[in-house]
Amino acid sequence: MKLNVGILGATGAVGQKFVRLLENHPWFTITAVAASERSAGKSYRDAAHWIEPTRMPESVAGLEVQLCEPRLDCDLVFSGLDSSVAGTVEKAFAAAGYPVISNAKNHRMDDDVPLLIPEINPEHVDLVQRQTYSETGFIVTNPNCATVGMTIALKPLQDVFGIEAVHVTTMQALSGAGYPGVASLDAVANVVPYIGGEEDKLETEPLRILAPRQGEGASSSVTPLSFPVSAQCNRVPVIEGHMECVSVKLAGSPTADQVEQALRSFTTPDEVAGLPSAPETCLMVDDADAAPQPRRDVHRGAGMTVSVGRVRSCPVFDARFVVLSHNTIRGAAGGAILNAELLASRGLLARRKV
Amino acid sequence: MKLNVGILGATGAVGQKFVRLLENHPWFTITAVAASERSAGKSYRDAAHWIEPTRMPESVAGLEVQLCEPRLDCDLVFSGLDSSVAGTVEKAFAAAGYPVISNAKNHRMDDDVPLLIPEINPEHVDLVQRQTYSETGFIVTNPNCATVGMTIALKPLQDVFGIEAVHVTTMQALSGAGYPGVASLDAVANVVPYIGGEEDKLETEPLRILAPRQGEGASSSVTPLSFPVSAQCNRVPVIEGHMECVSVKLAGSPTADQVEQALRSFTTPDEVAGLPSAPETCLMVDDADAAPQPRRDVHRGAGMTVSVGRVRSCPVFDARFVVLSHNTIRGAAGGAILNAELLASRGLLARRKV
Amino acid sequence: MKLNVGILGATGAVGQKFVRLLENHPWFTITAVAASERSAGKSYRDAAHWIEPTRMPESVAGLEVQLCEPRLDCDLVFSGLDSSVAGTVEKAFAAAGYPVISNAKNHRMDDDVPLLIPEINPEHVDLVQRQTYSETGFIVTNPNCATVGMTIALKPLQDVFGIEAVHVTTMQALSGAGYPGVASLDAVANVVPYIGGEEDKLETEPLRILAPRQGEGASSSVTPLSFPVSAQCNRVPVIEGHMECVSVKLAGSPTADQVEQALRSFTTPDEVAGLPSAPETCLMVDDADAAPQPRRDVHRGAGMTVSVGRVRSCPVFDARFVVLSHNTIRGAAGGAILNAELLASRGLLARRKV
Amino acid sequence: MKLNVGILGATGAVGQKFVRLLENHPWFTITAVAASERSAGKSYRDAAHWIEPTRMPESVAGLEVQLCEPRLDCDLVFSGLDSSVAGTVEKAFAAAGYPVISNAKNHRMDDDVPLLIPEINPEHVDLVQRQTYSETGFIVTNPNCATVGMTIALKPLQDVFGIEAVHVTTMQALSGAGYPGVASLDAVANVVPYIGGEEDKLETEPLRILAPRQGEGASSSVTPLSFPVSAQCNRVPVIEGHMECVSVKLAGSPTADQVEQALRSFTTPDEVAGLPSAPETCLMVDDADAAPQPRRDVHRGAGMTVSVGRVRSCPVFDARFVVLSHNTIRGAAGGAILNAELLASRGLLARRKV
Repeated sequence: MKLNVGILGATGAVGQKFVRLLENHPWFTITAVAASERSAGKSYRDAAHWIEPTRMPESVAGLEVQLCEPRLDCDLVFSGLDSSVAGTVEKAFAAAGYPVISNAKNHRMDDDVPLLIPEINPEHVDLVQRQTYSETGFIVTNPNCATVGMTIALKPLQDVFGIEAVHVTTMQALSGAGYPGVASLDAVANVVPYIGGEEDKLETEPLRILAPRQGEGASSSVTPLSFPVSAQCNRVPVIEGHMECVSVKLAGSPTADQVEQALRSFTTPDEVAGLPSAPETCLMVDDADAAPQPRRDVHRGAGMTVSVGRVRSCPVFDARFVVLSHNTIRGAAGGAILNAELLASRGLLARRKV
Repeated sequence: MKLNVGILGATGAVGQKFVRLLENHPWFTITAVAASERSAGKSYRDAAHWIEPTRMPESVAGLEVQLCEPRLDCDLVFSGLDSSVAGTVEKAFAAAGYPVISNAKNHRMDDDVPLLIPEINPEHVDLVQRQTYSETGFIVTNPNCATVGMTIALKPLQDVFGIEAVHVTTMQALSGAGYPGVASLDAVANVVPYIGGEEDKLETEPLRILAPRQGEGASSSVTPLSFPVSAQCNRVPVIEGHMECVSVKLAGSPTADQVEQALRSFTTPDEVAGLPSAPETCLMVDDADAAPQPRRDVHRGAGMTVSVGRVRSCPVFDARFVVLSHNTIRGAAGGAILNAELLASRGLLARRKV
Repeated sequence: MKLNVGILGATGAVGQKFVRLLENHPWFTITAVAASERSAGKSYRDAAHWIEPTRMPESVAGLEVQLCEPRLDCDLVFSGLDSSVAGTVEKAFAAAGYPVISNAKNHRMDDDVPLLIPEINPEHVDLVQRQTYSETGFIVTNPNCATVGMTIALKPLQDVFGIEAVHVTTMQALSGAGYPGVASLDAVANVVPYIGGEEDKLETEPLRILAPRQGEGASSSVTPLSFPVSAQCNRVPVIEGHMECVSVKLAGSPTADQVEQALRSFTTPDEVAGLPSAPETCLMVDDADAAPQPRRDVHRGAGMTVSVGRVRSCPVFDARFVVLSHNTIRGAAGGAILNAELLASRGLLARRKV
Repeated sequence: MKLNVGILGATGAVGQKFVRLLENHPWFTITAVAASERSAGKSYRDAAHWIEPTRMPESVAGLEVQLCEPRLDCDLVFSGLDSSVAGTVEKAFAAAGYPVISNAKNHRMDDDVPLLIPEINPEHVDLVQRQTYSETGFIVTNPNCATVGMTIALKPLQDVFGIEAVHVTTMQALSGAGYPGVASLDAVANVVPYIGGEEDKLETEPLRILAPRQGEGASSSVTPLSFPVSAQCNRVPVIEGHMECVSVKLAGSPTADQVEQALRSFTTPDEVAGLPSAPETCLMVDDADAAPQPRRDVHRGAGMTVSVGRVRSCPVFDARFVVLSHNTIRGAAGGAILNAELLASRGLLARRKV
C-alpha cells in the first residue's frame, strides 16, 4: 500500500520536479500539493507554469493547491520551498507529526537533522531520533545541488586516504537558479562568476556529510570534519548539470592511479542499492578524453549517477578530476526522494492515522 | 613613414584578426598576405571566409594571397600560422632577415626567443640579440591566449609578495579554437572539460614570462621560475573572453586586502604606456559583486585591458580572484601587435632595403 | 524471429541515431554496420565518435565496421549515407536483393520510389512493385527533416479543404546539419538565414507525399500536386527540433476554427497505429499561448509526435500556425524505422536466404 | 550650444541605451534622469543595474534620479518608459511644454503624432503642428523594434511598385524584451513562438509609416495604407538583432532582379543624410549566400544600417528576402535620437526659458 505524499512549494521549479519524478513511483502517491496564497484554491493545472519537458501528470493536474499549513491529507511531505519560508513551515509540519523530506537549505546544518546522501552517510539517519518536534514528525535534508556531486566523489577518497584540502571551481547550470531565475541577457554567451551563498555551502556541507556518526539513536551526533575547502562558483549557459573541477590533497600523497582506483572501487551500500531511485552506478569513472559533458552525460542513471572524468595528478595537490551531477535530479528532487526511500525502508515512514 | 607588414596565415581566424586590428594602424600597413597553397593566387577577398564582425578592409581585400615563403614585400611579418607549420616557416622568414612577430606556440619556449607581454617583461626583448637567424631577422612570440590574462594578474603578486603556488580553472571562449573550431553540437548548452595542450601551456609559460632577465643584450638569458601551477581548462559556450578562477599561495601569507592593493597598484611601464595599442589600464580591478563577465567586460580597453574581480581570501591558499581577458585580441593578435610596437619603439624594426 | 538489419553510414550522426533507436527494437536486430574506408576494419566502438546522449549499445560496439558493399550479413539495410554516395550505394544494395530503407535525398523523387510517411501516404508503398532492381531488393525513402512536420500538418488540410498555397519559414535545429556540422561561431547567439538545398525540398517533397496514388501494385504511380509552396529556411541555435511558421491558403476560405478542427480530427490509419514506433498521437494540437517550443515539446511521443500550436486566422491567407517536429527522430532515423515497420507488417521484408 | 535632455525611464534597458548613445553627442547633453519612485533620490550610479557593455558615463553616473514629473531641468525628454505608464507621463510632459521623443508604443497610432523614421517619412513631422498639448510641447514616436527594419526595406518597394501583400516571420533577439526579460530557461537552445502584442504592431505600424502625408502643417494628416500584412513573431536565442523573413506581393509582378534593383536604389533624403546619427547607408543589400546574420552584421552603421539579403523570387508572391536590424539601436534608442536630430535640424527643438 502506497504512502500518500504532499509537495510543499509544488508550483515552483523544484516542486514540479518532485511532481514529475513521483509519477508512477512504486511507494509514493501525491495526494496533496501546497504553495503560496497566490496559488491556493486553484487547480494545480492552472496554478503551475509547467516547465518540465514531459506532460503534467493528469492525477496531479486536478488537485487543488492548498496553503502550506500542516493540514494536508498525506503521510509525509517533500519540501521544495524557498528558503525564505522553508525554515518556519518545515518546523510547523514536523511539529504536527509529518516527516519532512526537505530540499531547502534552512535546516541542513541543524545538529539533529541528517544532511543525507543515502549512498554516503546512511548512518546519519539516526539523528532524527534526537529531534523533538513531535512523536512522528521530523526533518531530513539533502545537500545543495553543487555539494552532492563533489561529496560523492570525495567519499571514497576520504575513506581510502583521508582528505587534507580541496580546491573546487564549479560551472553550474541555469536550472539551479529556478524559474525565472537567471535573465537570458546574463546567460547567453556569458559566464557569471558569482552565485550568492553557494561557495559557503560547498565549503561546509561536505564536512558534515563525510563526518562519522558518533553514538547512536537518540544519542547520536555528527561533528563536521575540518579540512579546508576553497570553492569558486560560476553560472554557465548550460541547462542541466553542474560541472566541478576538483583538486585534492590527500594523506599519504597517493598517485593519480591510486586515486582513480579508489574512485572506481566505490560501491553503493546494500541497503541503498535496492531502493527504487538508487542508480545502478552511483559514481561512474569515465576515461574518455573529454568527459564528462553536461549535454551527453547528465542523464546517466536517470540523472542519479555522478560522473567523474579526467582523473590525473595535480602539480600542486595530489590529484584532480572533473565531476558532473544532475543538479535538479541528484542534486534536488531525486536526492530527496532517495532519502525518503531510505527512511521508508527503515520503517521511519508510516501511514498517518486520521 | 609606416612600416610594411605581411601576415602569415592571413586567411585564418587569427590572421583575420590581424587584418582587422591593423586597419588604420598609425605605424604599420599591410602590404602582403600569405596563406596555404589552397588560397595562394586568389585575392584575399575570395580566399578568406571572413568571420570578423566588421567589413573586410578594402585595402587588403584586393591583395593577392601569396605562399608563406620569405619573398614577401614587407618589412616584418605577423604570424597567425597553425602550429603544424609555424615552426619551420617562421625560422625561414627569420633566416631571410624578416622580424617575425608570432602568435604560434612553436618557438615560445626557445631559450633565445622572448615570450613577451610588453607591460610585464619588456626587458626580455634583449633575448633577440642572442638569435642568430640572420642580421636583421628574429622571432618574438606572445603567450597562449589563456596564459596572458592570468600572468598579467600574477605579475604584481610576484613582485610584491612572491608566488608559491597557483591553482587555476579556466572557462574559455569558443573563438579560442579558431574557425570552424568547436562543433556547435559540442558547444551549445554544454561544457567540454578538455582543451588539448592547453593545461601544459598555462603551467609553464607564466614561469618563463615572470622570470627576471639575467645578463643583457647578446648575453641575456631567462631561467623560468619554479612555483607549481595546476591548470584545469574548459571550453564554455562564450564567444569572446577567457575567464579564469585563480587561487594563489603567496610568500608571507598576505591578506586579501593586501592582495587587492597589490593588484590595484600595478602600472604599465612608461615605455609601453605610450604605444598605440597599449590600453589606458592594463589590469583593472572591478569590485562589483558578479564581475567580470565576458559579455559585459571583454571589450574594455578595446580588448586589451585584463579585468580582475572577486578578490577575496582563500580557505586553502591566501587569495583567490577571477580574471577575464579577451582571447583573440589581448590573447592573440592584439598582443602580437603590441609586441611589434614595443620592438619598433626600441628601433628593432626597420625598413628593409630591397 | 527478428529480422537482421545493417546500417549504412553507421558512424555518422544519422547512423548513430539508427543504432540508438534500434536498441531493443522488437522486430529488428543490428547485425552489420558499414561505413567509409576510414572506418572499415575497426570495431564500431573505435570507429564511431559517439555523440548520442545515451551509452553506445554494447551489442553494436563490438561489431566490426564493414565497407558499404552489398555483402552484409543482414535482411535489410537502413541508409544514413551522405548524399554524395547514397545514390550509387543504395542502388547497388537494391540490385543485390536488399530492401533499402533510406534517409538520403537521392532517390526521394524517383518515380518508382515511395517518399513515405506511414500515417500520411501508406498507399505509396505500392510503388516498390514497379522497381526492377532485383527480385527482393527495393528502395523506400523518408522525407527531408523539415518536410515531414509541415507535411503531416498539411495532410488533414488537404483532405478537408484542399490547399491552394503555402508560405513557410523554418527555424531549424543544429543537429539537422550532422556532426561536426555547423561551426559554433556561426551558431551561438546567431541565426544563419540559409541552408543549402533545403528550401527546394520543402517546396517539392510535400507535393509528392500528399498526392494520391493512381493505379495499384506494379501499375501504380504518383503525380505530384501543384500548389505553390514558398519556403524560407534558417538555422537557429537549437539542438533538436525544427520549428516552422506556416501560413496556408485553402479552398473555400475556412475559418481558423475550422482549420483547427480539421487538424484535431487527424487520426493515424489503423494499419499504422499498431506499429512499434508509431506514436499514440501523430499530430497534436497544443492550445497554450506560446507552444510548441523545442526544449519543452520536442520529445513528445518519443520524438515521433508532431506538435502544432497558435492556430489562428491569417490576414493574407486563411490560417497560420506553428509546427514543431523532432528532426533526427521523426525527421530522420525514427521516420525510416517506422517506414520499415510498415513494410514488415505488409510482408515486404523477409529473412534472406543465405 | 548643446540642448539639455532628460531621460524618462532612465534606469531601464532602453533608458540605459539612451544614456550610452548620447555620451559625446554633438547636439545633446543629458542633464536629467528620471525613473520610478524606487530609484528616485539615488544617484544614477546606484539606481541603475547597468547592463550595457561599455562603462557608465561618469557625467551621468553622478546625476540624482528624479521622479517622472514635468519638473526636469532640460529642453526635451527622451522616453524609454514602460507602456504601462508612458501614455500619461508623456502627455504630462508635452502639456508642460517639453518636446517628448518617445520609444513607447502608447501614442504611436495617435492621429496627430508622427510615427517617424527620418529616412522614410520625414514629412510626417508636420503632424506635431496639430498637437495642442502646449505651445512648445509635443510628442514624436519611433516604431516598434521589429517594425522598423521591415518598413525601411518596404519603402522603396512601395515607391517603385506598390505593395499588395506582405508575409513576415520574425526571429527576434532577447534584448527586445528588456531586462530581466526572457528567462534563460526559456531562451537557451529554444524558440518561443509568441511575443505578446508584437504581431499586431508589425501588421499596422508599417501602414501608417508608409502612408503619404495629406495637407501640411496644422492641416496635415496621415491615412494608413491598407495592404494586408501577416506577421508571425518568434523569440530566438540571439542577443542583438531582429531577423525577418519577408515575402511581398507587388503591383505589376516585378522580377526578383527588379526588386533587388529597387532596394539598392534607396537613398537617404538629403536633410537626413547629414544628421549625426544617420548611417552612411540606411539600407544595405548584401549578396553573400548566407547573409545577413545577427552576430556578424548587426553593428553595421553603428547599429543604424538595416541589412537585406537573399533577395530572390517567391513561388507564392513576387519576391522574398531577409531583413536584419539592430533592435535596441535602430529599433529603439538610436531611432529616437535620429528623430530628435531631425526635429532639431528643422528648428523644432529649442532652449527652454527658465
